[in-house]
Amino acid sequence: IPSVPADLTHLTEYVGCGMGDTQGIVIANLDPQIHSILGFDPKYRSIGVIGGRTGAGPQLMAADEAIKATNTEVILIEMPRDTKGGAGHGNLIVFGAEDVSDARRAVEVTLQVLPKYFGDVYGNDQGYTENQYTARASKVLNVAFGVPEGKAFGLILGAPAVIGMLMIDAAVKAADVQVLGVGTPKRNTSFSNEAFIWVTGDSGAVRQAVIAGREVGNKLLCAWGQTPKSSGTPYI
Amino acid sequence: IPSVPADLTHLTEYVGCGMGDTQGIVIANLDPQIHSILGFDPKYRSIGVIGGRTGAGPQLMAADEAIKATNTEVILIEMPRDTKGGAGHGNLIVFGAEDVSDARRAVEVTLQVLPKYFGDVYGNDQGYTENQYTARASKVLNVAFGVPEGKAFGLILGAPAVIGMLMIDAAVKAADVQVLGVGTPKRNTSFSNEAFIWVTGDSGAVRQAVIAGREVGNKLLCAWGQTPKSSGTPYI
Amino acid sequence: IPSVPADLTHLTEYVGCGMGDTQGIVIANLDPQIHSILGFDPKYRSIGVIGGRTGAGPQLMAADEAIKATNTEVILIEMPRDTKGGAGHGNLIVFGAEDVSDARRAVEVTLQVLPKYFGDVYGNDQGYTENQYTARASKVLNVAFGVPEGKAFGLILGAPAVIGMLMIDAAVKAADVQVLGVGTPKRNTSFSNEAFIWVTGDSGAVRQAVIAGREVGNKLLCAWGQTPKSSGTPYI
Repeated sequence: IPSVPADLTHLTEYVGCGMGDTQGIVIANLDPQIHSILGFDPKYRSIGVIGGRTGAGPQLMAADEAIKATNTEVILIEMPRDTKGGAGHGNLIVFGAEDVSDARRAVEVTLQVLPKYFGDVYGNDQGYTENQYTARASKVLNVAFGVPEGKAFGLILGAPAVIGMLMIDAAVKAADVQVLGVGTPKRNTSFSNEAFIWVTGDSGAVRQAVIAGREVGNKLLCAWGQTPKSSGTPYI
Repeated sequence: IPSVPADLTHLTEYVGCGMGDTQGIVIANLDPQIHSILGFDPKYRSIGVIGGRTGAGPQLMAADEAIKATNTEVILIEMPRDTKGGAGHGNLIVFGAEDVSDARRAVEVTLQVLPKYFGDVYGNDQGYTENQYTARASKVLNVAFGVPEGKAFGLILGAPAVIGMLMIDAAVKAADVQVLGVGTPKRNTSFSNEAFIWVTGDSGAVRQAVIAGREVGNKLLCAWGQTPKSSGTPYI
Repeated sequence: IPSVPADLTHLTEYVGCGMGDTQGIVIANLDPQIHSILGFDPKYRSIGVIGGRTGAGPQLMAADEAIKATNTEVILIEMPRDTKGGAGHGNLIVFGAEDVSDARRAVEVTLQVLPKYFGDVYGNDQGYTENQYTARASKVLNVAFGVPEGKAFGLILGAPAVIGMLMIDAAVKAADVQVLGVGTPKRNTSFSNEAFIWVTGDSGAVRQAVIAGREVGNKLLCAWGQTPKSSGTPYI
């Protein structure tokens, strides 16, 4: 993360940057015309926004932690088909708040915890595996994936999609988990080159399923001759 | 723009190239099977085609000028999710004409005026802002954005989408303009990593709104340490 | 293709790699939860999977040959908007089989014949033309394009889409073929920057149409100063 340019230090809406070209901003009084055209409830006078070109998964996980820690709601999640030529998604996440300090805090927490969730994203020139786990899902994961709040959540994802196909099979065979949903190029993605499932169940089983998927996915990624590398420090 | 290869000088359908990998061609007598499968009115015997991998906005603006200057209609606008790994759109624009000389002229005018509309596109490795303005919209902008013909039109756009979110709020706060529509990864885009609005109103107000959006967007793009640069000569 | 890493030689599901970041795997007993969530018929106990980030066309053509040679069915074809920053599609193809050896054989045949179908893909930094032809379509082409089994099939495709527009017109003018379908950024693609048709008819006429499209498409690609190159050995 480079130091903040002088121009930007005077811009009160700017909060900060992070991995994956992530940027966070806050708007204290969103204009009513923008409220209306985006379909936001007017009671959320203030919004916090997290956006990035890569790392949709880490941003969702981090935003989920931010929701737990602040008095905000998630009012928009949209995942573009981006990633700078990669196979996956970027992100646009909006927190709504009645008070600007809450919106700002949600953005700050997201940016703070973001590096953790890049820890189990492994990539090389051919693709990547993304592995996420939490013992207790909050509202972002509820909105994005339909996982019940307070329940364990696991994401088992591989790109290109052929990698993900073996990962998801290995994951459900490794532990007694419940599959909540599936993503493929035409299902629950923005035409992304990914195959993935998200699962719930006993937290130990969910973690085990994620680890089993990760293991076989990272092996398949080696097939082209490059060992995939973690984007941070593995946490699962 | 490189010089035209020898092979191509003999191809009567080739008209020329421009920024954004833009290319223009003309087909004097489009085959009836192609007319039919693309749903084109047979009366447009001749078509002119503009396509590119980046610069959807400049191509639309330039095509709008071409429509004003020629006896043609715009019969197709489709924006792929392309831009060579960038966050936005490429383009495919088809002009229909009863006479091939009109179709050719529309393509020629588009290529001629195209550089102007790259003037307020600013980019760096993380994203870009695109700012467009005309005091008088014609048929291309009417078809693409629903702006009434003859009215002022402004486009305020930032990528990644988080950049655009602040731009659109700043734009509508800066001047008394009417928001006609909004684009986000899942609204009015091809899953692109952009947030934007298009506005109409008094031409001075529209221009002011575009300038206000541009100013804050270019500042946010600096956050990653690179100053965004214009792709040409600013015209707004 | 690099040599297979040691780790991978012990993974029985791994079959092999190919051009276009293509990878093939096989799963002997797909988990019932995965069967169910992907909507696969349980009778296909075993699946073979072909996936890639580029080269959707060659993969489809090769898979079509594999279907002819094996006792398998194609049960999923989904084309992501990928190609590593290119204008087109990646692929995810799933063969279903009652016996794992059939599924494996389908994947092996696909990987074996794949290089042939890259032979008439020509590209440069601006785009590409993809030209495919077979005298006798099988089930993959039937599912993907609706071409009747046993009939001739031709694909005439150019990217960016402006290139394809001239190719498809030239193709149908060159020979008496029947246009079965069309692809543009918003029709039958994943917002890809391509225009293409697929045709059937007398096999000689289909071949002639493909060659006519290829000729003019490769000329237009020269306009930016680079001669497009075949990705292999032309076969049409």
